Amino acid sequence: MRPIKERDGATIEVIDQTRLPFELVWQTLGTVEAVATAIRTMVVRGAPLIGVTAAYGLAFALRTAASDATLATAIEMLRATRPTAVNLPWALEQLRVRLAPLAPHLRAEAAWLEAGRLAEAEALACRRIGEAGAAILRQTWESGGKKSQFNVLTHCNAGMLATVEWGTALAPVYLAHQLGVPVHVWVDETRPRNQGGLTVWELGQHQVPHTLIVDNAGGLLMQRGEVDLCIVGADRIARNGDVCNKVGTYLKALAARAHDVPFYVAAPVSTIDLSLDSGAGVIIEERDGDEIREWKKQLLFPPGTPVRNPAFDITPGALVKALITERGVCAPSMAGALFT
Amino acid sequence: MRPIKERDGATIEVIDQTRLPFELVWQTLGTVEAVATAIRTMVVRGAPLIGVTAAYGLAFALRTAASDATLATAIEMLRATRPTAVNLPWALEQLRVRLAPLAPHLRAEAAWLEAGRLAEAEALACRRIGEAGAAILRQTWESGGKKSQFNVLTHCNAGMLATVEWGTALAPVYLAHQLGVPVHVWVDETRPRNQGGLTVWELGQHQVPHTLIVDNAGGLLMQRGEVDLCIVGADRIARNGDVCNKVGTYLKALAARAHDVPFYVAAPVSTIDLSLDSGAGVIIEERDGDEIREWKKQLLFPPGTPVRNPAFDITPGALVKALITERGVCAPSMAGALFT
Repeated sequence: MRPIKERDGATIEVIDQTRLPFELVWQTLGTVEAVATAIRTMVVRGAPLIGVTAAYGLAFALRTAASDATLATAIEMLRATRPTAVNLPWALEQLRVRLAPLAPHLRAEAAWLEAGRLAEAEALACRRIGEAGAAILRQTWESGGKKSQFNVLTHCNAGMLATVEWGTALAPVYLAHQLGVPVHVWVDETRPRNQGGLTVWELGQHQVPHTLIVDNAGGLLMQRGEVDLCIVGADRIARNGDVCNKVGTYLKALAARAHDVPFYVAAPVSTIDLSLDSGAGVIIEERDGDEIREWKKQLLFPPGTPVRNPAFDITPGALVKALITERGVCAPSMAGALFT
Repeated sequence: MRPIKERDGATIEVIDQTRLPFELVWQTLGTVEAVATAIRTMVVRGAPLIGVTAAYGLAFALRTAASDATLATAIEMLRATRPTAVNLPWALEQLRVRLAPLAPHLRAEAAWLEAGRLAEAEALACRRIGEAGAAILRQTWESGGKKSQFNVLTHCNAGMLATVEWGTALAPVYLAHQLGVPVHVWVDETRPRNQGGLTVWELGQHQVPHTLIVDNAGGLLMQRGEVDLCIVGADRIARNGDVCNKVGTYLKALAARAHDVPFYVAAPVSTIDLSLDSGAGVIIEERDGDEIREWKKQLLFPPGTPVRNPAFDITPGALVKALITERGVCAPSMAGALFT
């Protein structure tokens, strides 16, 4: 299953991730405005997936008018939907470079084809990340004495739902499971938006054993020796290997370091932002406080409770054992070298 | 305001903390069974408060029959309600030592008086913790250049609601606020039971500026220099200074260490368990998974989602700058010396 698919050559269908894990509902998108709204409201989310979805959004915009002005305006509108993940501006830039030299009447069709090509490239990248990561999981399990349960902790959702297929952090889990490694996944619920529910749903679909925990629990589990490996995705990786990912990732990386649990980051190279020297420069998205105060319109805290809701944090590369990419596994500090 | 009060010499009234922060509802307790249920279901919670409440429960039990057997049975029933906080068995042991030598017909009345005495002693201890802690907050603020906002982060609720009056971790905050330190408190929501809502409610009552954050956010705030000091309570402190407190505390202590943010633990000496060499021996309460899956009967995750719900974790004493107690401020490793 893919969370995004082309439909009748004119529109796309995406899984509405705000309805999961309770119900599987597809939403049809056919305009750039609808795509922008879907990204902003997190109907689609996950760094690689929002890049691909935005690419289709650009194709929709160019169908209406394919002038240079439309191209620039649509890119700006889509880029503004969410500020932190680099895959979004990266995907738009890929398209811009290809489309700008074309005559306007050719752009809409080219954009549609290009979006499809991007989707396939992302799917393939995830498959390769899965292969490289599964080898690491298997090796870690074997060198740890092949315990009857190999406990992996993950934060947020970096699975199929966050990408086009397979996922980034979950691709190695799926493949290791297929290879016979007895993987069990601790799934952080990932407040405030509970993306852990997406991960639970995905793992359930693949029949991978898993247990949901609150974001507070991972430290205790590591203290008690119940975590063998951590793996997460990323929204932006700086040249020095600092990793920007869902808020709370950093706290797990600190605990992993304190207990010698290897901490991996799995991401396509499109997540590496060569223009960024370190994580200090990342713009951290601040989201609406109602995401904390409410859950599906029910109050968790009284209206008006003052809240602050940053969506990401920075894990220093020094806490990351390795980056797992479609071009290979490397030390975080070597992130820039993946492009040479 | 106190969260527990004697009523007509025969029953007690407690704030039902499961209804806060939405409504202030009092519950009358007059039997040992009602007290045990109130503790188990967290109508009353917070290590010092459950100790005092259990003491009243023992008085209720002895009114029915004051034999040695009743004394032993009631103590066992109350002790079993929650396993982690040491204040509960400590308070019961205080009463047992006083009551056991008495003739049975004197025990019920003595237990009632003893419970009241314990309540006053806990209130006084918190006042003293507040004074010692406020001096630390003021000094930290002054040595940091008297910034216009002094940011304190706390986890869970260790305020008035967790004690008899003032609180442990919040007592210094209240007193520092009165002394003119421009305190602003980052309040961890503290999943799964959202005790952050209790802290927000209390701070609002005292007009102390505060902002609610998800448990995932504290690491980022420390990275960005937005936390000046952390202070939490404790449920059990080992002789070596290891601190058992609400799950998630440890993750914040790790982040505080990484960013040189001083991390304090405020607790009465009744929280120190001299029989415990280190935190490794603490029994961590595992609570019902529905606390994670549901919120006030509304589903957050699908029924049947596999969950694990440990309620506490261990912060090594080495991460704690000092213990703040009613007998003074000391290095965690000196916890045992507070008794000499």
